[in-house]
Amino acid sequence: MNEQIRLDFQRPERLDFDEAILCARKSDAQLTAIMDRVLAHGTRCLMTRLEPDVFARMAPADRERLDYDPVSRTAYLNWTPAGEPEPPRIAVVSAGSSDMPQAAEVTRTLTYLGASTKQFIDIGVAGLWRLLESVDELRTFPVIVAVAGMDGALPSVLGGLVPGVIICLPTSTGYGVSNGGETALHAALASCAPGLAVVNIDNGYGAACAAFRVLNMIRRTAAAPNG
Amino acid sequence: MNEQIRLDFQRPERLDFDEAILCARKSDAQLTAIMDRVLAHGTRCLMTRLEPDVFARMAPADRERLDYDPVSRTAYLNWTPAGEPEPPRIAVVSAGSSDMPQAAEVTRTLTYLGASTKQFIDIGVAGLWRLLESVDELRTFPVIVAVAGMDGALPSVLGGLVPGVIICLPTSTGYGVSNGGETALHAALASCAPGLAVVNIDNGYGAACAAFRVLNMIRRTAAAPNG
Amino acid sequence: MNEQIRLDFQRPERLDFDEAILCARKSDAQLTAIMDRVLAHGTRCLMTRLEPDVFARMAPADRERLDYDPVSRTAYLNWTPAGEPEPPRIAVVSAGSSDMPQAAEVTRTLTYLGASTKQFIDIGVAGLWRLLESVDELRTFPVIVAVAGMDGALPSVLGGLVPGVIICLPTSTGYGVSNGGETALHAALASCAPGLAVVNIDNGYGAACAAFRVLNMIRRTAAAPNG
Amino acid sequence: MNEQIRLDFQRPERLDFDEAILCARKSDAQLTAIMDRVLAHGTRCLMTRLEPDVFARMAPADRERLDYDPVSRTAYLNWTPAGEPEPPRIAVVSAGSSDMPQAAEVTRTLTYLGASTKQFIDIGVAGLWRLLESVDELRTFPVIVAVAGMDGALPSVLGGLVPGVIICLPTSTGYGVSNGGETALHAALASCAPGLAVVNIDNGYGAACAAFRVLNMIRRTAAAPNG
Amino acid sequence: MNEQIRLDFQRPERLDFDEAILCARKSDAQLTAIMDRVLAHGTRCLMTRLEPDVFARMAPADRERLDYDPVSRTAYLNWTPAGEPEPPRIAVVSAGSSDMPQAAEVTRTLTYLGASTKQFIDIGVAGLWRLLESVDELRTFPVIVAVAGMDGALPSVLGGLVPGVIICLPTSTGYGVSNGGETALHAALASCAPGLAVVNIDNGYGAACAAFRVLNMIRRTAAAPNG
Amino acid sequence: MNEQIRLDFQRPERLDFDEAILCARKSDAQLTAIMDRVLAHGTRCLMTRLEPDVFARMAPADRERLDYDPVSRTAYLNWTPAGEPEPPRIAVVSAGSSDMPQAAEVTRTLTYLGASTKQFIDIGVAGLWRLLESVDELRTFPVIVAVAGMDGALPSVLGGLVPGVIICLPTSTGYGVSNGGETALHAALASCAPGLAVVNIDNGYGAACAAFRVLNMIRRTAAAPNG
Amino acid sequence: MNEQIRLDFQRPERLDFDEAILCARKSDAQLTAIMDRVLAHGTRCLMTRLEPDVFARMAPADRERLDYDPVSRTAYLNWTPAGEPEPPRIAVVSAGSSDMPQAAEVTRTLTYLGASTKQFIDIGVAGLWRLLESVDELRTFPVIVAVAGMDGALPSVLGGLVPGVIICLPTSTGYGVSNGGETALHAALASCAPGLAVVNIDNGYGAACAAFRVLNMIRRTAAAPNG
Amino acid sequence: MNEQIRLDFQRPERLDFDEAILCARKSDAQLTAIMDRVLAHGTRCLMTRLEPDVFARMAPADRERLDYDPVSRTAYLNWTPAGEPEPPRIAVVSAGSSDMPQAAEVTRTLTYLGASTKQFIDIGVAGLWRLLESVDELRTFPVIVAVAGMDGALPSVLGGLVPGVIICLPTSTGYGVSNGGETALHAALASCAPGLAVVNIDNGYGAACAAFRVLNMIRRTAAAPNG
Repeated sequence: MNEQIRLDFQRPERLDFDEAILCARKSDAQLTAIMDRVLAHGTRCLMTRLEPDVFARMAPADRERLDYDPVSRTAYLNWTPAGEPEPPRIAVVSAGSSDMPQAAEVTRTLTYLGASTKQFIDIGVAGLWRLLESVDELRTFPVIVAVAGMDGALPSVLGGLVPGVIICLPTSTGYGVSNGGETALHAALASCAPGLAVVNIDNGYGAACAAFRVLNMIRRTAAAPNG
Repeated sequence: MNEQIRLDFQRPERLDFDEAILCARKSDAQLTAIMDRVLAHGTRCLMTRLEPDVFARMAPADRERLDYDPVSRTAYLNWTPAGEPEPPRIAVVSAGSSDMPQAAEVTRTLTYLGASTKQFIDIGVAGLWRLLESVDELRTFPVIVAVAGMDGALPSVLGGLVPGVIICLPTSTGYGVSNGGETALHAALASCAPGLAVVNIDNGYGAACAAFRVLNMIRRTAAAPNG
Repeated sequence: MNEQIRLDFQRPERLDFDEAILCARKSDAQLTAIMDRVLAHGTRCLMTRLEPDVFARMAPADRERLDYDPVSRTAYLNWTPAGEPEPPRIAVVSAGSSDMPQAAEVTRTLTYLGASTKQFIDIGVAGLWRLLESVDELRTFPVIVAVAGMDGALPSVLGGLVPGVIICLPTSTGYGVSNGGETALHAALASCAPGLAVVNIDNGYGAACAAFRVLNMIRRTAAAPNG
Repeated sequence: MNEQIRLDFQRPERLDFDEAILCARKSDAQLTAIMDRVLAHGTRCLMTRLEPDVFARMAPADRERLDYDPVSRTAYLNWTPAGEPEPPRIAVVSAGSSDMPQAAEVTRTLTYLGASTKQFIDIGVAGLWRLLESVDELRTFPVIVAVAGMDGALPSVLGGLVPGVIICLPTSTGYGVSNGGETALHAALASCAPGLAVVNIDNGYGAACAAFRVLNMIRRTAAAPNG
Repeated sequence: MNEQIRLDFQRPERLDFDEAILCARKSDAQLTAIMDRVLAHGTRCLMTRLEPDVFARMAPADRERLDYDPVSRTAYLNWTPAGEPEPPRIAVVSAGSSDMPQAAEVTRTLTYLGASTKQFIDIGVAGLWRLLESVDELRTFPVIVAVAGMDGALPSVLGGLVPGVIICLPTSTGYGVSNGGETALHAALASCAPGLAVVNIDNGYGAACAAFRVLNMIRRTAAAPNG
Repeated sequence: MNEQIRLDFQRPERLDFDEAILCARKSDAQLTAIMDRVLAHGTRCLMTRLEPDVFARMAPADRERLDYDPVSRTAYLNWTPAGEPEPPRIAVVSAGSSDMPQAAEVTRTLTYLGASTKQFIDIGVAGLWRLLESVDELRTFPVIVAVAGMDGALPSVLGGLVPGVIICLPTSTGYGVSNGGETALHAALASCAPGLAVVNIDNGYGAACAAFRVLNMIRRTAAAPNG
Repeated sequence: MNEQIRLDFQRPERLDFDEAILCARKSDAQLTAIMDRVLAHGTRCLMTRLEPDVFARMAPADRERLDYDPVSRTAYLNWTPAGEPEPPRIAVVSAGSSDMPQAAEVTRTLTYLGASTKQFIDIGVAGLWRLLESVDELRTFPVIVAVAGMDGALPSVLGGLVPGVIICLPTSTGYGVSNGGETALHAALASCAPGLAVVNIDNGYGAACAAFRVLNMIRRTAAAPNG
Repeated sequence: MNEQIRLDFQRPERLDFDEAILCARKSDAQLTAIMDRVLAHGTRCLMTRLEPDVFARMAPADRERLDYDPVSRTAYLNWTPAGEPEPPRIAVVSAGSSDMPQAAEVTRTLTYLGASTKQFIDIGVAGLWRLLESVDELRTFPVIVAVAGMDGALPSVLGGLVPGVIICLPTSTGYGVSNGGETALHAALASCAPGLAVVNIDNGYGAACAAFRVLNMIRRTAAAPNG
């Protein structure tokens, strides 16, 4: 049935960014068919949740077509950087080094979309001085992606300190009542800090897209400041 | 112990918007003490979740100090509009007329903060033509707040059609497995549309603050487009 | 204790369709005993959730007796097609290519029961044009099985556009608050579109049986239109 | 904002049945506005979840316009029966007398839509003889709506005995682990009986619409049996 | 720390039955230490949840000391049957062949404790005739253990038909909203049939002990009928 | 529709005890209709969950027909004690005085059914000496109903000390993670004490019926000790 | 049955503090009986969750016997302060003024038990400067009770800043995914700050007792520093 | 990105104990980088949740640097015992031998921190005599860590018998409604025994830190008894 697969190639016209392929739960044959379709259409695509063992099972020719990163489990197909990068306007902040895969998925997705990022890691609230050291710099970013698992206290603290748009990315890090990220998700949603915006657990791709939507609107304004 | 209440009057300096008072679970005495503190400090405040019966129990002098709206259950204390309103750049979209209280809380909060809005109501996906009629106009807004309860399908459809920032506000409308808004919340978070950002169930205030953060960053850029 | 297994061979007389064997959680010895029982009784059966590795462990003679499909994980035992197929009156609609195994289970079960289907895949609401392109054709089907995971928005949109019977099959596709299909299930149940009927998560067999019950009642009417 | 309410008057053309108004969570002013809109449009409507105290608060003129039934909490506005009723082809089966409000909502909705029903009450499985006495008659109905709360065992037993389409309507009857209807819902979804179709807890309106969709498709076939 | 293990050898004096060893989550070294302790004490024991691969890893001498059954995953250590068995007074009834491991754990535990059982399998309610055929015989048993997963409708039907003590053993059979046995558990607890008594999901050992407690009290009465 | 109510008057022949009427969620008219039906049939019945305010709303003639107890919220209709009571063989044990309504429902139901009980209250494990003082007496009862809310630790301690049949009745006493009785329910089901049998939260009627089933089987044995 | 109530008067000998009466779910008659029992025994007691309307319904003589505080809903019966208070060694810290009832229950319980407290209110993390201002003082307390609802971020921040024992008291403040305090509870339990100890939602009495146990052990050491 | 890892080396100054490394979800490369960082800083660290297979994959040089214990899955890096141990003042009490890994994590962590412990194992309440035998000794400990899974009844019984600080460590031991430790967690939180303090499921490290905080405050008092 793979010949029936229909990709949403019109997405860039509607949304200003292109469809990504969520590789989880797709068969090897489906992934190959999708890659062929993308190349035949002369476009590019981003693949997410491409597990290392799935990548390793691919034909060498397929593997060579991909720019693959095992930490974030993302791959770029037919992608080239778009000229000189602009200075980073999106900060990616993470609470602990266990959250690195999700933070990396954010960064890789934004790089693919042509947005520069700066990473701040290991600034969880249990060692508050690490966060406080960075506050002045963080206040200069119009968009911050806050990556946190377990109790998810980082976004609440951050939300009271900086004026930028905060996209909270809860992660499944933790055990017991961390409940696979649910506690971090709920803490971000129920935060007493005003105006936090939240995406699904471990959804680094979605957090990046949300951040990109903001950046895109800012860019449009910069291009047409009276609009 | 009410004399110990400490309000966060420094918030505007940090976040560009001021603290709101969540009236739910506060005693009448606490509310009066807070209002006195605000007036003594010479500032203004927004009160949310101020139920009509609590408002009705207030002393006449207190009631007169407030600009109260019973649909959104919000009140303005010591507030005056800030000059001529700019054209609306935030759309507030709702799926059904049962979601009007939450949509009104968004609008009232944004009005308080000095941001104009335009409302689109009754455009849930069960009568898709109503949404499709509005798409072209919605595509011109940099920020959309999408209010939906029950199955929460509206944000997913919207997210595939417009490029702006979408803040999803799930509501507790519905019964059975609507689970007090949880299904609408989860549908927004698990959406196949990319880059939706979500706030807590019935948190119209939070959705407004998230939208304001985006608008604020856009305004800063418009003021300093090269930054 | 396998000699005690009692199959429900009388089911066709009561329900017009025969018992299927859910292979999950049955031991290899139980599966062999059941197949022997079916053949000894001179009848046929459908096996569901027969995982590839279980199939591969079977004796070659057993494997040869089966018409096995690894995508849907179904097998036909002692089955032959019943004459010329009628034109399809059941549409199987799926939101994404990750839902293919469940859609295939629907199709394979209906084929086994003698009902023709037509598949529509990749018409999730995030790329709404794909669904809108197919609406006119979908409106001609008396029964539609709508397969969707993640936010499960497809059935809600469909339910407002077509008059036929809609059987919603939520799938466990997704992660985080998709909760193994619970969000798609709840969204279908709490839909604002009227008259959606829902089956258990990933229960392609059950969705097919529900669709067949409808088709069967339509056929009876066609045979005796005044009844 | 009530002047912005937009009703989906085109629904009958798309779905063959008209929009109903869910009165829960709507203000008195909203209900009046909706009724005025319906009358101004020269059409009819069904109102569900119209609680007796809300009905009692209505202006006498409004109350007189309505055909109100307090058991099912439904009202008909501007409705007249459509000629001679046909013999009932939908059975409404309920397990206990505590489920009467939900069963009545099914019946009232179907009457509104022009479909005759026959009720079978108090045939829960704890007194199995009551169900067995009715099986032969129930086997003649093309559609059965099975209403059950608590353990929800009725649909499973029924599903193994009759060939018709079974729409399961779980109810919130019960306490403790009945969990407001969740156990009955889950039991219907997880049933070992094949091909049960399920609607949301206490959603009598939705169960009726699902049954009507089936009846409608049967009627179309009867009208054009070769289609 | 294994030398610190303290077994409850006094249990038979208090409860009339001896402690069993739940092997799940115990290390191989712990299991060996426990077996040695039991033998040193000159008593016997029952081991439950002893997985085949754990059994296979044991030293040959240890394996030979055990009467092991892989279906129920139970082992007897140092056990000999206690004379001629009495006629069975406990029926073990199961809904489907997927529940065989749990039913076998009940039977093996009761055999170990010196109580005879009779098994009735595959009498789930989806094929009601199989249950109805057995009702007259089942009515003669003072104790019935009813084993059922998925929707767990069997105990409710049984509870309305027989006067004996009914111990419900929900199983984790099923998928989706079966929720690992929770739906079967809740259905048994919320049953409209009066006087069902329930044990934990998959707890065949516990169901057997509950049945044994009843049998034991009946035996005491038989021995001293005036007590 | 009340004329359609069908009571299960044959239950005593099947189960040795008669149907009870769960009054919750029944309308006043339904209750009156049921009482009339019972009296017309010349039999008796037990009414449970008959709230004081519902009782107070009844017609005086109806109230006089009932033996009503407000603590247990039970009523007897047309009931007379059956001769001299036998010595109590069922102990009703409760952890705290907050559980008195549920314990009273057990006792009232058993009295109705003709079984004597002895109550032991306030013997929760937080003051263990109170339980230990009663152990020797409790060991003489063939059946114990253990009533406990909050953490539900009483059944586990009891289960290790006495050989009789233990029916656990979890109650909704408590707050926070007591979760309306769920924690007490789960603690009883997951108990490390062997052979506890459990009924639904607050289901005093069900606990009594389960206890009665045991007593009934013991009585049969006493009458025919060789059976 | 109230004459059967048995209070645990021996508790002070075992635990160094006396039993409290949880008034929720106790009838007025039960409360009176308990108060009489306490007075007859010549001792004192603490009553918790004594709602203002229950207090108002008491006989005047009973009301006069009590030192009642409506904010914390606690009452002292027969209590007198034990000499000069020592300097406070327990800090009670709360995130917002909505948490005042729970914080007051902690303070009132500790006062009853003879332990001095100091309150710090409104130091939630959304206005971090309020917490940072107090850190140096908080570091001098051996025990801190941290009261927080909603996202419950306060304990995590505190736990990384102070060395004392931290008892976390989650509150049911909040809405939506605050889930009646569950999110605050889970955030405290899953905290990345090491060594937080947690009590049940809204359990101010329990938090006070936990704090008192620590203080009591410290006092014993102070009295016998070499032990 | 591993060069960006920032450890919280200042923690001992703030909290009197040092940061531990939670190895779960960290890559092999991250663990090596962290160990190098610790050694370069000339300090020590504790590693928790270091699974045997991860340990086995380490380079031999890395393995040799560690004092590794496979039961508790903990490792000490660069650690030496601090002089003569003081007599144990913390008791570690566990209900069953299945809880040994968690109890061992408590003990190993406290040993690392320089606190002596005494273990009491297999004293679950199902064999109450084992607990009662130890009560007098347990009453002499200022701090008790109570480790229990399944129904978690041990802390409730203990809490009514001893005056010391009780840290409850629920474990994921058990199946079915044990829910991976949730029932034990909830039972400890909802306990009727006053003043239990609870940590996350399986969080032996956290329980040890909570116990250490208490011991540390006691030691400070012993050093400065008038403080």
